[in-house]
Amino acid sequence: MAEPSANPAPPPADPPAAAASAAEGGEDSSTSKKSAKKAAAKAKKEAEKARHAAERAAAAAASGSASQTEDLAKDNYGQETHETKLSTDAVEIDLKTLGDEHVGKTVELRAWIQNARMQGAKMAFLELRVEGNWAIQGVVTASLEGAPVSRQMVKWVGSINPESFVAVEATVAKPLEPVKSCRVANYELHITKCFVHAAAPTMLGMTLAAANRPIANFSDEEVPVEQGVEKLSIASAGGETAGTPAATMLTHLDNIVMHKRSAVQQAIADIRAEMKELYRSYLRSHGFKEFEPPCLIAAASEGGANVFRMPYFEKEAFLAQSPQFYKQIEIAGGRKRVFSIGPVFRAENSNTPRHMTEFTGLDMEMEIKKDYREVLVVLEGVLLHIFRSIKERCADEIALVRSVYPSDEFLLPEPGKEVRLSFAEGQKLLREEGPEEFRNVTDDEDMSTPQEKALGALIRKKYKTDFYVLDKFPESARPFYAKEDPTNRAITNAYDLFMRGQEICSGGQRINDPVELEARIRTKGIDPASPGIKEYVDIFKQAGVPAHGGGGIGLDRVVAWYLNLPSVHLAAFYPRTPKRLLP
Amino acid sequence: MAEPSANPAPPPADPPAAAASAAEGGEDSSTSKKSAKKAAAKAKKEAEKARHAAERAAAAAASGSASQTEDLAKDNYGQETHETKLSTDAVEIDLKTLGDEHVGKTVELRAWIQNARMQGAKMAFLELRVEGNWAIQGVVTASLEGAPVSRQMVKWVGSINPESFVAVEATVAKPLEPVKSCRVANYELHITKCFVHAAAPTMLGMTLAAANRPIANFSDEEVPVEQGVEKLSIASAGGETAGTPAATMLTHLDNIVMHKRSAVQQAIADIRAEMKELYRSYLRSHGFKEFEPPCLIAAASEGGANVFRMPYFEKEAFLAQSPQFYKQIEIAGGRKRVFSIGPVFRAENSNTPRHMTEFTGLDMEMEIKKDYREVLVVLEGVLLHIFRSIKERCADEIALVRSVYPSDEFLLPEPGKEVRLSFAEGQKLLREEGPEEFRNVTDDEDMSTPQEKALGALIRKKYKTDFYVLDKFPESARPFYAKEDPTNRAITNAYDLFMRGQEICSGGQRINDPVELEARIRTKGIDPASPGIKEYVDIFKQAGVPAHGGGGIGLDRVVAWYLNLPSVHLAAFYPRTPKRLLP
Repeated sequence: MAEPSANPAPPPADPPAAAASAAEGGEDSSTSKKSAKKAAAKAKKEAEKARHAAERAAAAAASGSASQTEDLAKDNYGQETHETKLSTDAVEIDLKTLGDEHVGKTVELRAWIQNARMQGAKMAFLELRVEGNWAIQGVVTASLEGAPVSRQMVKWVGSINPESFVAVEATVAKPLEPVKSCRVANYELHITKCFVHAAAPTMLGMTLAAANRPIANFSDEEVPVEQGVEKLSIASAGGETAGTPAATMLTHLDNIVMHKRSAVQQAIADIRAEMKELYRSYLRSHGFKEFEPPCLIAAASEGGANVFRMPYFEKEAFLAQSPQFYKQIEIAGGRKRVFSIGPVFRAENSNTPRHMTEFTGLDMEMEIKKDYREVLVVLEGVLLHIFRSIKERCADEIALVRSVYPSDEFLLPEPGKEVRLSFAEGQKLLREEGPEEFRNVTDDEDMSTPQEKALGALIRKKYKTDFYVLDKFPESARPFYAKEDPTNRAITNAYDLFMRGQEICSGGQRINDPVELEARIRTKGIDPASPGIKEYVDIFKQAGVPAHGGGGIGLDRVVAWYLNLPSVHLAAFYPRTPKRLLP
Repeated sequence: MAEPSANPAPPPADPPAAAASAAEGGEDSSTSKKSAKKAAAKAKKEAEKARHAAERAAAAAASGSASQTEDLAKDNYGQETHETKLSTDAVEIDLKTLGDEHVGKTVELRAWIQNARMQGAKMAFLELRVEGNWAIQGVVTASLEGAPVSRQMVKWVGSINPESFVAVEATVAKPLEPVKSCRVANYELHITKCFVHAAAPTMLGMTLAAANRPIANFSDEEVPVEQGVEKLSIASAGGETAGTPAATMLTHLDNIVMHKRSAVQQAIADIRAEMKELYRSYLRSHGFKEFEPPCLIAAASEGGANVFRMPYFEKEAFLAQSPQFYKQIEIAGGRKRVFSIGPVFRAENSNTPRHMTEFTGLDMEMEIKKDYREVLVVLEGVLLHIFRSIKERCADEIALVRSVYPSDEFLLPEPGKEVRLSFAEGQKLLREEGPEEFRNVTDDEDMSTPQEKALGALIRKKYKTDFYVLDKFPESARPFYAKEDPTNRAITNAYDLFMRGQEICSGGQRINDPVELEARIRTKGIDPASPGIKEYVDIFKQAGVPAHGGGGIGLDRVVAWYLNLPSVHLAAFYPRTPKRLLP
């Protein structure tokens, strides 16, 4: 895991090294609790001893190389664990709002060392990063007037390991020319105090520069040992982004802390969180109430394929594949409009950049008053609201993601010109204007993924939108609960919503009459008395349930396809795949 | 499940009866798909035949008893499946905003029949419920001027089964005196058209009146057959609330649709959703970013006890007991403040009204700048914000819940007078002023539930608050990741927050130094190299992690204890217990 770091000198105290020495005093898991405690106490003592020795050695080395005189600045820097040694009158600054009024002021900043380098013996430059790509240049100079900054201090600060967390006290100044390497270009910090609160190891598993590069490979397979050389070279290229080769997704997951510190991942996380909030606030303002469906269920309600099963006390439990059953219970239970946001699970052994075993479902269900398209209006409405608002709310974040993963603008229809084709119209378009291989598609078979993508391209060209609806799917392509079109039983009041030719939402009207439902279940070759199905049908027998419909949106896909990311795994906080549950 | 209903006459078409006849045409699950389809088609045909016969019979019966003349109103009522038969100029009304300006207008309402009764042969009264306890009286009169309402129609409407869903067209009128039985007391609807969109069965499994009564018994054990008589009597008392005996939680769960239609359950659900929203909006406005921890994890990070395990492709997976590990990764990964809302799981075989196997965790984690109490300020702040705001936002709902489950006002501290006792101060209070049996409690053992409750009573009396903090828990009572007080290693920078003497939130500062963390893990008798633990420690070795802390709030408990409900199961949408995963 440890790879050569961009920075040359080790810090005075290196916790991971001390940790290794502590581990050597360890015991195996079979020792009794009592002896374990004893051993632990001993190990702790030894670790502390080792740390103190390292600190003394480092201090001696620092003072030795920077002349043998007393270090007058010795209280202004160092490894700080518990006490705060900054002046109480230093004001904490926010890099996003830093302005001319701060120039000359004594301020305090807590940040990660993104880079540290010496410029001769009397000056060191730091990049101090707060969050995302918000960083400011810090300068520490032994000749700084009025502040006791020693050469020893400059050397110590200049050799702090990148990704260590520090607290600095400094004066805000205007640099001679704008600082190119930092987002805050027009100000810099003249550092008078610097304390390391949490040290990074000498060698990072992955540098920040590597973490910010596009991911090269999303395979779940470990790179074989003979190819390991390539993997090892990733971080050794150092702090420059341009020359840094791309790392694999597995390297990113093995170095999750650095993965998450990358500006691109933080931007994706911000966009995801805002999309979720936009979904929620739009539905709330349209009369929807949030509810919480369970994850643990007693039967595999949607057929039993691809469902996780587990021992549950004396019985068996399953993990819900969708909240379908439960959002319909809410409507049966007297709610007009409900929504939920939560994890759903698929035990599908698909190792592709489009699949995960756990993902986030944005679900909704509502009473239908007169027409099933009332639901479609809400689904279109909430997604258009998300797309239009995110462009404004997260303009910076979207631009940042595009700088790493380039993508075309996500095209939206003009208000009032939303594109809704029937499934048959979509197939017709494919037959008449699509690629050769789709010249014979018919209206009563489901679309394949390549068909969907080809249609997406045709629609983009013809209607200038990446977002559209396919309505009236054939009966054969929809599950047993889909309501048939009363005027044409071969098709259903069900639809899919697409982004860039990929399905991100399935929905439609449900059957609300138990007689009709049981008949349809039989038509699909399912026994209405089978576990999971019986309980579902019973809901509609308990009391009269009004006409209703809904839809389920895959949040991970919405984020990934909006940004045109190479994998849905990049949109997830902790992607779960058949081969990987860590971290 | 079927119990005698409050209403005498069956409706013309009773779907569940037809459903039963359809089921008789069924097959078992072993028949081939083809023959199943054939059988299904046959069953469907038969079901439709049965339904038509029932409709004809009902129509004949209706016209027979109300004289043999032609029914001039025959297009104004009946069972409606697909088409809308209401006038297009009828305006849909919202019961919550109904006013004098609507009087005399032709309006449309879609509602559940809460009650229907005949008053002689020419008049029927309905209670039409929309949601919660929002209902209005409907009157249908054969002599109504200008509208063709026949005696047949009155009889038909007056005998619609309760909990059927109908659409009515009516004129808004002022009743001669306020309607006591409906929340909308000052208006009533003079019905001119009435169509049943979804019929309820003749016998409901549980009446609405029974569903609105306090639940008598939360035992997970099925009532033995010899005691079944008592269970059966629940619904037979009819529509009057006063005389209706209480049902058990099991009866409620078996009749989930009626359980959820009760005003009290809808009020609890509304309060829960608003509390969740208040949590979210407060944290967002304080700089917290939402993230999503996984449910599926590779190792039981918190010791392995009470964790669900399951086969996961060729490996094993566990269900997360808390997002502890993951929210700390977010901080290590460069986030300043994060929160999450999601399910957590405990495989604890506890069959009590306080336990569930799946519940909703409101979690947060943040960087600590100078003092671990910064976290406590946020946790106290968000909970006080929830308690103060919910009182205003959900005043009606809280009053409604109290009318079923009486409780004392939830006492809050004056702003600035929040109660924070150290654990030692709490124990001292118990020793000096608590019940006899707690005279010898010490400062280095954890509190038992009875001790906590006794302390809650003492604090309520002394400080007039039901919400308070116990800080500085003894080291022995906290997990390995809890940070010790640097000035006193016997205690930790960790705390619990309480409501009415019951813990609803645990939190504190975490150890952020890997050397200190490994030493503490050994002290606790755990091997730092064991699965789940090793990955946890590694996070702090990947790069420098700033001081941080957080807390986890149990949403179900906050809702339940705020309302002083007899069981946390009532606060959940779908309570999961060791014996019950349905519905």
